[in-house]
Amino acid sequence: MTTADKINALRASMRQNNLDGFLVPRADRFQNEYVPASDERLAWLLGFTGSAGLALVLLDRVILFVDGRYTVQAAQQTDPALVECVQIGAGLSYQSWLRDNLRPEQQIACDAWLHSQAQYQSFAQACQQAGAALQNSENLLDALWQDQAQAPENPVVAHLQQYAGQSSADKFVAVAESLAANGVDATVISATDSVAWLFNLRGSDIPYNPVFGAYALVDAAGSAELFIDEARLANEALDSLPEAVRLSPPDEFEVLLERLGEVNASVQLDFSSIPAAIAQCLKAGGAEVVNAADPCVLPKAIKNSVEAEGARQAHIRDGVAVSKFLYWLDNDRPQAATELEVAEQLRHTRLQVAEQFGVELKDLSFNTISATGENGALPHYSATPEHDCRLNTGDIYLVDSGGQYLDGTTDITRTVILDELPAGELANEMRDRYTRVLKGHISLALARFPQGTSGNQLDSIARYSLWQGGFDFDHGTGHGVGSYLCVHEGPQNISPRPNNQALLPSMIVSNEPGYYKAGAYGIRIENLVLVIEQAGGERPMLGFETLTLAPIDRRLIDAEMLNDAERGWLNRYHQRVYETVAPHLSDTEQQWLAKATATI
Amino acid sequence: MTTADKINALRASMRQNNLDGFLVPRADRFQNEYVPASDERLAWLLGFTGSAGLALVLLDRVILFVDGRYTVQAAQQTDPALVECVQIGAGLSYQSWLRDNLRPEQQIACDAWLHSQAQYQSFAQACQQAGAALQNSENLLDALWQDQAQAPENPVVAHLQQYAGQSSADKFVAVAESLAANGVDATVISATDSVAWLFNLRGSDIPYNPVFGAYALVDAAGSAELFIDEARLANEALDSLPEAVRLSPPDEFEVLLERLGEVNASVQLDFSSIPAAIAQCLKAGGAEVVNAADPCVLPKAIKNSVEAEGARQAHIRDGVAVSKFLYWLDNDRPQAATELEVAEQLRHTRLQVAEQFGVELKDLSFNTISATGENGALPHYSATPEHDCRLNTGDIYLVDSGGQYLDGTTDITRTVILDELPAGELANEMRDRYTRVLKGHISLALARFPQGTSGNQLDSIARYSLWQGGFDFDHGTGHGVGSYLCVHEGPQNISPRPNNQALLPSMIVSNEPGYYKAGAYGIRIENLVLVIEQAGGERPMLGFETLTLAPIDRRLIDAEMLNDAERGWLNRYHQRVYETVAPHLSDTEQQWLAKATATI
Repeated sequence: MTTADKINALRASMRQNNLDGFLVPRADRFQNEYVPASDERLAWLLGFTGSAGLALVLLDRVILFVDGRYTVQAAQQTDPALVECVQIGAGLSYQSWLRDNLRPEQQIACDAWLHSQAQYQSFAQACQQAGAALQNSENLLDALWQDQAQAPENPVVAHLQQYAGQSSADKFVAVAESLAANGVDATVISATDSVAWLFNLRGSDIPYNPVFGAYALVDAAGSAELFIDEARLANEALDSLPEAVRLSPPDEFEVLLERLGEVNASVQLDFSSIPAAIAQCLKAGGAEVVNAADPCVLPKAIKNSVEAEGARQAHIRDGVAVSKFLYWLDNDRPQAATELEVAEQLRHTRLQVAEQFGVELKDLSFNTISATGENGALPHYSATPEHDCRLNTGDIYLVDSGGQYLDGTTDITRTVILDELPAGELANEMRDRYTRVLKGHISLALARFPQGTSGNQLDSIARYSLWQGGFDFDHGTGHGVGSYLCVHEGPQNISPRPNNQALLPSMIVSNEPGYYKAGAYGIRIENLVLVIEQAGGERPMLGFETLTLAPIDRRLIDAEMLNDAERGWLNRYHQRVYETVAPHLSDTEQQWLAKATATI
Repeated sequence: MTTADKINALRASMRQNNLDGFLVPRADRFQNEYVPASDERLAWLLGFTGSAGLALVLLDRVILFVDGRYTVQAAQQTDPALVECVQIGAGLSYQSWLRDNLRPEQQIACDAWLHSQAQYQSFAQACQQAGAALQNSENLLDALWQDQAQAPENPVVAHLQQYAGQSSADKFVAVAESLAANGVDATVISATDSVAWLFNLRGSDIPYNPVFGAYALVDAAGSAELFIDEARLANEALDSLPEAVRLSPPDEFEVLLERLGEVNASVQLDFSSIPAAIAQCLKAGGAEVVNAADPCVLPKAIKNSVEAEGARQAHIRDGVAVSKFLYWLDNDRPQAATELEVAEQLRHTRLQVAEQFGVELKDLSFNTISATGENGALPHYSATPEHDCRLNTGDIYLVDSGGQYLDGTTDITRTVILDELPAGELANEMRDRYTRVLKGHISLALARFPQGTSGNQLDSIARYSLWQGGFDFDHGTGHGVGSYLCVHEGPQNISPRPNNQALLPSMIVSNEPGYYKAGAYGIRIENLVLVIEQAGGERPMLGFETLTLAPIDRRLIDAEMLNDAERGWLNRYHQRVYETVAPHLSDTEQQWLAKATATI
């Protein structure tokens, strides 16, 4: 079937159902950041393979909404005769488009399993404002998609106490207490990292995130029901589950929702993550639905002492791997090496170093961003076999990567000059921008702040030096990171966007200011940091312990621009990198690292 | 009547009306920050004279809610046998107390003219959560208060175009456009500074704020009705009003509300400031009430070029006055001078300098905080004849004051060491804390930031240096300031409290970090700054122009703690102070100022 055939078939199905429009999101039934092949509906229907987007198929037009990252790609991958690409952001949202462009009486439908309740409600409101209406329907696209893959059902394994640090039973007690405090009977949890955290289980249904797709019910008495095919769980995983957990087949989940309705249960749901279908089914059946934060999100973000120590260990071996890679990049990189080849070298080094430490690299924590020259100026650049550039002398090369280890998840960005700085004014400019980014990174790394301070309040600290020069960067300064879980997790972050969540002791967050010059180069310096208590102040203060261990390219630093405190941090950091990493390197690598971490 | 008599009389009245409780706020019908004598109900009923508080008179108890500033004062001024003082803040709000302490079926009443609609709604909800109810009633207290003063009706004068910079007619056009854009018929404006700004009128009903009490109606066609006794307006003021303005007697205001109801008008109200009585009367009468920001607040905050230039001029003469005062403090202060005497000297100097410049000091912009030694550690300290301390050598003295001039409102805090630093470690400590406060002040003064940045995002910049030492301060870093209007105005501020309002070009805001050591001393360094565009950046950036001009005490600065950028700012600032202020000083004052502003 061609794209036109598919669109026509979908429209025929829409007409049969008296529908004027059908929404196709890039989402699965768990609102995962990465989706399995079975949920790549935008790729199947329109050929668009970006990681975010939403299509609205109307009877006379097809709109593909994408954000600024995918404007070019969407235009390249779709046929303009069939598809209109619309860029959202900066004043235009899905909602405002629907409100301003739908016509009165239009009937729009979507598969409510693929939209969060919050998103569904905002779409429904936008439709209503246009005089149109949104309704839930069968997935008309899936009915046409003959070779749609099965949803993955990979094995699920136990995440052992030696890594998790807290038993699943203890986690249930805490969640049950929070439900009781909220006066509700139960909650349905759909976020896959919350389920994995709560049950101390891990999976491999999707790349990079060691999670599995299964809804869970937890009640205020601390009992839990996990809707998953029992055959997916290894014996060890089955044995690890607390007594309070019952396993039920996935097809019994809707029966449960009906039962909750029948007894008029009050059920807490997190509207930002729960599929709209679940909220609607519960409401329609007679349950009382209460919108409140997923009770796993905050305790998951606050690492226990075992997880914090695991993170330290994971970052030592990850730092060894990245340091060996940077040595290779400087000394052994083939002349003709491309971005993908270099990324593969980094992956290979992580695998080897993990083996050297006697552990396993389970996966990368996201698709490596390996970007040279002007590609580095695209913050979410992804090299492909079709667009894979050679690393050239004088380029600034940016590599943002991470690993999944049983004891922790890593995420590090290093930006280096390849071989030697270009001649003339450009070198001064590069050093100026790099040093401003570094000053922001260090100011944040050195920051102390009172208990109760949010990442939102700290964000400007990482931007101050760039701002002074009239520069800025268009992404957040930091995101939360899981423990052998998702590399992006909430509720905390460090961002200009309002977020009142305080940074709490033992949260992990990234520190990654950057600078991007379109058509020229990109700079980002990213370490993960652990929030720690800082004794000795007049008030209880918090601060950061830097976890990531790899050299920061001294060739790009203008030492004159650093003040004493900044220079002190850099030298202490580099000393720690050397002392921790060098013992695991060869002699030549050690000599290189000594220079790369020398006092400035 | 004794306090007990008054409480008993109020309770008798409550019983007659089948009420279990009556709320007595410290507020007038315009939610002014300062209230006239006629609205000092807490002082009349309970003897409490603080500037904020709320009493709940129940049949068996009287609760006086105060915030942390007034805990001690409330306990001192009230009889514990009659009144229970309850401190709100840090987890306890009026609302949470009502919810947790009222009993089912209790009928609580209040005078809905004295509460904003937002406050009334939150109180009503809290009562409901307790199973009790809130209702609007006649003011039972006023009915008992035999010698209650008349509400002030002082003359109202024109605020001339040469100071206002924009005609009232032009302001009506802009407000009408915003009402039309919101799809409403009209708005009622109750905030006195909004009314004064919109009509280009000024009054003197309350101290410090040159406003007058009068509600106004503006409709989407740009017509306006001001409810005020015409006799209060001088001829010049009458002549200044645009044609679109009709004056109506205050007692016709309720007739207007009824009329709006009868025609089912849609009326925009700002629930954060509008008296609940107005919202309720409109709703009950049949009007549609829409909650939206007072349309005067944002344009009032963005100064036009005439107001901005007026602010510069006002700050020159205010800087001359403060500099002369600081000279006097250093050289001519009597040995036995007290906080009140010194504050009076400052007021007198402002009067004299205004005369020297050929203009008038209309008023102070707030009650001067003149605090020596440990009194400075109370951020809202106010010396009284009963508690008026002598300034002693070696004390840190803090003075926070401002003037009202026709062309601008000023607000400045200077903190100085009296005569000489104390011996030993204490001097080092004082210099350390003072320099940290100064570093925060300078970092903010030097900040550039992208368009769209809120003060909330910038707040941490002023705290970073204090935080590094384990210190902090418990107030916002900055507040908006009016143009010959209120010294505290919104919508912008610089504060840890979430506020998404971007800082926009030509807003005025204070920059006033501090440090307070209980029982010892307080430090605050405050300048007003104007938001300006900063050309030359890669992106459109904003920054600050410092308006305030007076020396910052060099004796308390540890120059070693300043980096080059900070030292550069201080020296440039002091040079500007000298060049601007010195021509208006005597020779001896000039010599002193030269030393006080010498390069560091």
